[in-house]
Amino acid sequence: MGKIAIIMGSDSDLPIMQSAAEILTELNINFEITVVSAHRTPERMVEFAKIARRKGFDVIIAGAGGAAHLPGMVASLTTLPVIGVPIKSSNSIDGWDSILSILQMPNGIPVATVALNGAKNAGLLAARILSTQDKEVAKSLKKYHNSMRRSVLAKAKKVENMQKK
Amino acid sequence: MGKIAIIMGSDSDLPIMQSAAEILTELNINFEITVVSAHRTPERMVEFAKIARRKGFDVIIAGAGGAAHLPGMVASLTTLPVIGVPIKSSNSIDGWDSILSILQMPNGIPVATVALNGAKNAGLLAARILSTQDKEVAKSLKKYHNSMRRSVLAKAKKVENMQKK
Amino acid sequence: MGKIAIIMGSDSDLPIMQSAAEILTELNINFEITVVSAHRTPERMVEFAKIARRKGFDVIIAGAGGAAHLPGMVASLTTLPVIGVPIKSSNSIDGWDSILSILQMPNGIPVATVALNGAKNAGLLAARILSTQDKEVAKSLKKYHNSMRRSVLAKAKKVENMQKK
Amino acid sequence: MGKIAIIMGSDSDLPIMQSAAEILTELNINFEITVVSAHRTPERMVEFAKIARRKGFDVIIAGAGGAAHLPGMVASLTTLPVIGVPIKSSNSIDGWDSILSILQMPNGIPVATVALNGAKNAGLLAARILSTQDKEVAKSLKKYHNSMRRSVLAKAKKVENMQKK
Amino acid sequence: MGKIAIIMGSDSDLPIMQSAAEILTELNINFEITVVSAHRTPERMVEFAKIARRKGFDVIIAGAGGAAHLPGMVASLTTLPVIGVPIKSSNSIDGWDSILSILQMPNGIPVATVALNGAKNAGLLAARILSTQDKEVAKSLKKYHNSMRRSVLAKAKKVENMQKK
Amino acid sequence: MGKIAIIMGSDSDLPIMQSAAEILTELNINFEITVVSAHRTPERMVEFAKIARRKGFDVIIAGAGGAAHLPGMVASLTTLPVIGVPIKSSNSIDGWDSILSILQMPNGIPVATVALNGAKNAGLLAARILSTQDKEVAKSLKKYHNSMRRSVLAKAKKVENMQKK
Amino acid sequence: MGKIAIIMGSDSDLPIMQSAAEILTELNINFEITVVSAHRTPERMVEFAKIARRKGFDVIIAGAGGAAHLPGMVASLTTLPVIGVPIKSSNSIDGWDSILSILQMPNGIPVATVALNGAKNAGLLAARILSTQDKEVAKSLKKYHNSMRRSVLAKAKKVENMQKK
Amino acid sequence: MGKIAIIMGSDSDLPIMQSAAEILTELNINFEITVVSAHRTPERMVEFAKIARRKGFDVIIAGAGGAAHLPGMVASLTTLPVIGVPIKSSNSIDGWDSILSILQMPNGIPVATVALNGAKNAGLLAARILSTQDKEVAKSLKKYHNSMRRSVLAKAKKVENMQKK
Repeated sequence: MGKIAIIMGSDSDLPIMQSAAEILTELNINFEITVVSAHRTPERMVEFAKIARRKGFDVIIAGAGGAAHLPGMVASLTTLPVIGVPIKSSNSIDGWDSILSILQMPNGIPVATVALNGAKNAGLLAARILSTQDKEVAKSLKKYHNSMRRSVLAKAKKVENMQKK
Repeated sequence: MGKIAIIMGSDSDLPIMQSAAEILTELNINFEITVVSAHRTPERMVEFAKIARRKGFDVIIAGAGGAAHLPGMVASLTTLPVIGVPIKSSNSIDGWDSILSILQMPNGIPVATVALNGAKNAGLLAARILSTQDKEVAKSLKKYHNSMRRSVLAKAKKVENMQKK
Repeated sequence: MGKIAIIMGSDSDLPIMQSAAEILTELNINFEITVVSAHRTPERMVEFAKIARRKGFDVIIAGAGGAAHLPGMVASLTTLPVIGVPIKSSNSIDGWDSILSILQMPNGIPVATVALNGAKNAGLLAARILSTQDKEVAKSLKKYHNSMRRSVLAKAKKVENMQKK
Repeated sequence: MGKIAIIMGSDSDLPIMQSAAEILTELNINFEITVVSAHRTPERMVEFAKIARRKGFDVIIAGAGGAAHLPGMVASLTTLPVIGVPIKSSNSIDGWDSILSILQMPNGIPVATVALNGAKNAGLLAARILSTQDKEVAKSLKKYHNSMRRSVLAKAKKVENMQKK
Repeated sequence: MGKIAIIMGSDSDLPIMQSAAEILTELNINFEITVVSAHRTPERMVEFAKIARRKGFDVIIAGAGGAAHLPGMVASLTTLPVIGVPIKSSNSIDGWDSILSILQMPNGIPVATVALNGAKNAGLLAARILSTQDKEVAKSLKKYHNSMRRSVLAKAKKVENMQKK
Repeated sequence: MGKIAIIMGSDSDLPIMQSAAEILTELNINFEITVVSAHRTPERMVEFAKIARRKGFDVIIAGAGGAAHLPGMVASLTTLPVIGVPIKSSNSIDGWDSILSILQMPNGIPVATVALNGAKNAGLLAARILSTQDKEVAKSLKKYHNSMRRSVLAKAKKVENMQKK
Repeated sequence: MGKIAIIMGSDSDLPIMQSAAEILTELNINFEITVVSAHRTPERMVEFAKIARRKGFDVIIAGAGGAAHLPGMVASLTTLPVIGVPIKSSNSIDGWDSILSILQMPNGIPVATVALNGAKNAGLLAARILSTQDKEVAKSLKKYHNSMRRSVLAKAKKVENMQKK
Repeated sequence: MGKIAIIMGSDSDLPIMQSAAEILTELNINFEITVVSAHRTPERMVEFAKIARRKGFDVIIAGAGGAAHLPGMVASLTTLPVIGVPIKSSNSIDGWDSILSILQMPNGIPVATVALNGAKNAGLLAARILSTQDKEVAKSLKKYHNSMRRSVLAKAKKVENMQKK
């Protein structure tokens, strides 16, 4: 069965990144979570990325803010799929810095970028990746989509009724 | 063995999107390629996305420019991983429109966005995803990384020698 | 007599979108309001858009935030005029994402985009469209313009008097 | 039967704005076209806008570049629906200036903004507006949508065949 | 002696625009202040601008937010110098809309644009303009510059002393 | 009679800045033109600005690109009105750098900013400033406005006739 | 031994700029701190910059917001290395104005720009510069890097443990 | 005597980066130049950065485009001053991506960022850094400043003369 790594550049990213952990828990998917700073622990990052496949990870989710080098650098040191989560940190310029630092990778080294602060979608994307080899995950995702649909329909009813009053 | 779908909103996107086809060919990965317009053939898009998994696709690569709805809409109709390629089309506002239309998906429906015009990286990301279940692909990627490294080293030599002259 | 549909991607858009309902009520124009999510209920959206004209709607007002695909997708599935309201949602990048996702539609499928959070103007634009076939609405709009003018004149007086004190 | 006015701030906008004229011609819709500058002929603009409804126009399409005041000012002087076409003129800042000058109208005065240089979509939006009162136009639009769909399908075939070779 | 007109698009702009009034008062310069909306009272605006010179005004300061057409439209209706103050109003996109709507005027019709919310500088610029014909104003400005310099020197002392403690 | 100074940061700005010279010549207004670099000749700049009023200048037009400090620095060294022309130089980031460097002056030191590359409008603004004390200039401006209006009317005729053919 | 000057355009920049002072204190590096306004005390600025090298400074750290001319102007008046700190002041446009005013210096006059509000990094950069001639500073920096690394490792442990609970 | 390292992410950056080499040559400063890719040769980068000080370098100039991680990563692996040159590469989004990826470094790891494509200024900044310990370099810079000033004065004369003809 698959296993996901969730890493982040700083523990201050945890309030955002734990959404990835929560959705993976909800979908019954194994994961490990830790802090790996590209800039303050560059060698730890190299080590982490180089042995990630051997340690049994299938996907790495990496969140970072500002000049966010963690997702791209990890992607350069492994051939596993890496999902980048741009984080709007305190001195960020509206999040543009982390978005562009993660998204605009040069040819050769892809990072799967999700929306600003989109850690939940990073977890769901990791699940979609696992679902190509794991039918249980595919089923969980199917159920998750159905529940989203039902939730929208319930809200639609509520909004429609408000009008009638 | 895995199979990739490459779709694009318009045949004018082909000059960009064929980089995805080329790298997949180079890596010996099966793919199919076609045009699916979210706006001009919305029902074809719904049909395409809904049966994609059943047709044996593992990953969908979707490229689109301007208000680029194709990747996100396909992602809402399947639970396969969808990779979005923002394309800088002729009336695009420097590509910002397609980037944001693809990247900023709401919670629940992830799209793996790559760089502007980054179709080659979309192909490589698809290969990384397959590599989690297919050792041949993992090996091909390893070889590809090695050849990139060697190519940089050769260029480094050239630049260093230029200085000496 | 004409009828307007007001739809939104999420019930969290309601605080913005109800301004459209309020101005239509003020102008005595029929409308229906509900939630239709392009991403979480794509098939409901297809169904809604395809029968909108048959159900007697003249104009569809669609509000959405982030990668806002609802207005454009609805416009691709009907030939009714569709008014798009970009909404600055919580993780939006200052609203740029929803503006560009709605505005930058490709040739062939127009969306009438109004200002960020401009649901009131969406209602007024729908009224202007109806006014081309309905003299009552034209008169209501005329009255509305007059009242705006009078309100400005009153405020002008107030500001002028403040200075004199 | 309906009639459309196409106006532009300068004759240098004609290469863009004639796409509106062409699509209206194709759809068999009456229109008049002229130059009205908000800044160099402000009184002509006031006159034009104030009598537009009496002259039998149903929709006004107004294109302008830079600090584009024409669409918004015309909308403030009539209650007809006004469609604004932002134009990327020579000294424009990538078109942002005309987009924001047209889109961000204050509450009370709506402008239906289309994409940068989107004059064709402005024509199609005008046709959609007429279609709410004119079945012929509704039919023409239906046919236009069908032809777009067929054209995409033909191109899809071509792209699919390229791969097989 | 010179006289300045201060106008604004809405009374909600008053908290910003009164800085212009205050600095003019401080510099002993005559002014009148009122509300003139380009969009809700377009004819009042035309009237105001056309007779401004005859009414004895030397400079017009015009503040507006969003799609800010007031400064440019007034400039098109008079040959007096017009100073535009972009205002960051509630639904503004970080002020970019009002800045670009005021700044990017086409050749032929200049607007003297100051910083976002820069009403104080608008007042000072008006004073500089008057100073070319009025030695009293030139002297007041000289004094104002000297007091700014002294204030900075005092603050410099304070900051230098903080370090020593 | 009034006199204008036209200065620019580099002789590479001349193709843009000569539009200011041309319009002043056309309006029969005296001017002097030279190169003053804030960064490469800072002391020449200080000297120039400090004696500008004594040398009989009424208005200073200063053009600069990139991190454009010339207009703001000159404005800090004189109490004359200073008009800033942002120039889109070769390594500029679409002109945003020079616009913001000139426009966003702090409280106390105003610069009258015109559009990107808007040297012609800088000349016209200088003329408007002189017109408050010089009836000849006021008349020239009036004539200039009339000729602009007539030119638009001629072009309107041409566009209207094209349609009829 | 080296000495650093910390200057800022206004005492309102002190809450940001004192981070530079703090890190220099922590690293045992001499510095002086004061207020020098490019716009309100231009001659003080010229004086300051011209004698900075003679007064024994090795590096100048200059912070400023809005149209931030201080770092660039100081750099034009000395040949010492100048570090610019863009500050997001109250009426700043998200900090873009100060970033671009400091960063985009023309060829010939470099400014070493750090991140928005990045005064701490300005201090560290000054230390790195001194470290090329002063082994004590090089050692302090080494220690500082080590302590950053240890702090990340401790936080990583904490985050890993949270998951296990 | 000091020595500078010039590195770049790709040999396609050489046309920009050689300006750094040229100015260092002009100023008689030793340098070495090579290609080091953060993404394609991450381990070479780690090695390069870790021994840079021991190899006798005083300053590292690093140029990169797109998601430009090279300057920041090198800065995290050495305590030497690192100068980052953002490069506007072919698929760059107007250079914003490389600017923000280099500039917005987190607290702790500074990069001295220069203007977009500003390799010449990177060389000059390196020279300024050396000048704090090397009087010859300080003299060369002084001479360089003088020649810039004389060149401006010559151009000023030329522009002034043009007017007189």
